[in-house]
Amino acid sequence: MREERVGIGAFALDGGAVLPAVEQQVTIYGAGDRVALVSHALTGSSRIREWWPGMFGAERLFDLDRWSVIGINVLGGCYGSTPVFSGRVSVRDMVRAQARALEQLGITRLDLVTGGSLGGMQALQWALDFPERVERAAIVGAHDHHSPMGIALNALQREAIAIDPKRGLRLARKIAMLTYKSEELFNERHGRRRDRHGVDRFDIEGYLEHQAEIFERRMDAHTYALLTHAMDGFDVRDAPAPQGPELLFIGISSDWLFRPQDVRAAAERFRAKGARSAYAELESEHGHDAFLAEPETLARIIARTTSA
Amino acid sequence: MREERVGIGAFALDGGAVLPAVEQQVTIYGAGDRVALVSHALTGSSRIREWWPGMFGAERLFDLDRWSVIGINVLGGCYGSTPVFSGRVSVRDMVRAQARALEQLGITRLDLVTGGSLGGMQALQWALDFPERVERAAIVGAHDHHSPMGIALNALQREAIAIDPKRGLRLARKIAMLTYKSEELFNERHGRRRDRHGVDRFDIEGYLEHQAEIFERRMDAHTYALLTHAMDGFDVRDAPAPQGPELLFIGISSDWLFRPQDVRAAAERFRAKGARSAYAELESEHGHDAFLAEPETLARIIARTTSA
Repeated sequence: MREERVGIGAFALDGGAVLPAVEQQVTIYGAGDRVALVSHALTGSSRIREWWPGMFGAERLFDLDRWSVIGINVLGGCYGSTPVFSGRVSVRDMVRAQARALEQLGITRLDLVTGGSLGGMQALQWALDFPERVERAAIVGAHDHHSPMGIALNALQREAIAIDPKRGLRLARKIAMLTYKSEELFNERHGRRRDRHGVDRFDIEGYLEHQAEIFERRMDAHTYALLTHAMDGFDVRDAPAPQGPELLFIGISSDWLFRPQDVRAAAERFRAKGARSAYAELESEHGHDAFLAEPETLARIIARTTSA
Repeated sequence: MREERVGIGAFALDGGAVLPAVEQQVTIYGAGDRVALVSHALTGSSRIREWWPGMFGAERLFDLDRWSVIGINVLGGCYGSTPVFSGRVSVRDMVRAQARALEQLGITRLDLVTGGSLGGMQALQWALDFPERVERAAIVGAHDHHSPMGIALNALQREAIAIDPKRGLRLARKIAMLTYKSEELFNERHGRRRDRHGVDRFDIEGYLEHQAEIFERRMDAHTYALLTHAMDGFDVRDAPAPQGPELLFIGISSDWLFRPQDVRAAAERFRAKGARSAYAELESEHGHDAFLAEPETLARIIARTTSA
């Protein structure tokens, strides 16, 4: 693994603001011939192997003898890239900044771009904006626009942070955790059991409290607001079909934030426009988080549907 | 319509606290021979006709020439009943207090007890605790326990209120509104449209803001916490089958807070135990709120499945 902070100079955001000197935090694993870019989700980082370890290994998707796997902390992220304090960042901005960072590193061809959730939005945007550089985009637990339910959930999380940056960030994480999991998983794991540590609350409440505690130590409220706005703004339903890249949309059966039927519909919309576009479904009770919780199954789906 | 504040004396809560002198706010519509008790949900009141007008009328469920329809503000509610500031209130407490108020009024037989959501929980509890007084219980958008997802959503709403009683109550209402509606309804009504008044936000955000504004004028934060705790505590899965009352569980097809499959499962559990228990489904895109939004269809379902 090597890490670099790659300067991409001044950067004009879609929204109009110009950032004077932007650096992108880049992590590269392996030195294989095949090159993958893995875009991270709302709270991830360039250190893919820390949050997606199950994708790495000789029998997994990323055999590092064969692959070079690149992670980049998104524009506006709080894990090494230059913070953004003026204007809003779009998914297009993120992808354009990443493209410039990769150019600096001499990388102009990607065998695979993938990611889940906000990472999936970026993977799709990569295929749309840089079709000549992308062989294949695997878009997991995301589709071609953010839904009004998704927008509302993000807005309420930002509202919690606006009420109280610290306690509100904890509450935002708890709200988000409900959207990342499924009812079935909660029924199985927590049910109506009382707190396992004897506190006067239900077990599910203790679980959320624990998640909030971990979270507030690793996330920045400003970044959280910036990146959720980026998600809300995402809508590429009217984009023309990219010529060249193969699109693979992967829905998660129990995902209620990015519902599988909506992921399938996006795959069909792009196919109808003439893109190479396929749909596959990850059967899981883990909800939206299945892309993190079931990496082996997901890796098999991505590997299996390689038509290249 | 007549309204009465009915004293039921000292009242010992399930939790142990004793309330010295409790009054229940009661509203009675019509003077027919058939008697219905309508239990209200989290934010309702004894004035059923204000929040469930579609159930009333000659061609509807409650023809006031034939029916007397009674509403009672729940114990701990903020619409006329004595406020509760010590201890927590359970659904059993609510029902027991209502039974005592009805005794004061000379009413010991109910042809129908019905309600949606928390009101549905009360309707079921009535059939379990006072089977000799209840002919039929129509339990709408509720079942025999509150799920961990439901518990978590209530806990996060209380947490918002704990952070800031005023702004937090608004946020709580917005969270709740998401659980009361469906993704389909939001897609249809709001989609990704920008705010209709030109504010820099999405239409769905403006809708939620409007709902929060109406809400903070009519709801009390303490009551909100008290009644959501009562919902969380509800679990009658182990209750023996009531002898006598007919149970009608009505699930809503697009309800994700009280999912139709869970409502159906509750109906089946009671049938398996030997109760007269039926299940019917209200087909609607309105989500949990369909019990308020589609009263005509709901009234037909309740009337149709009268086996008595």
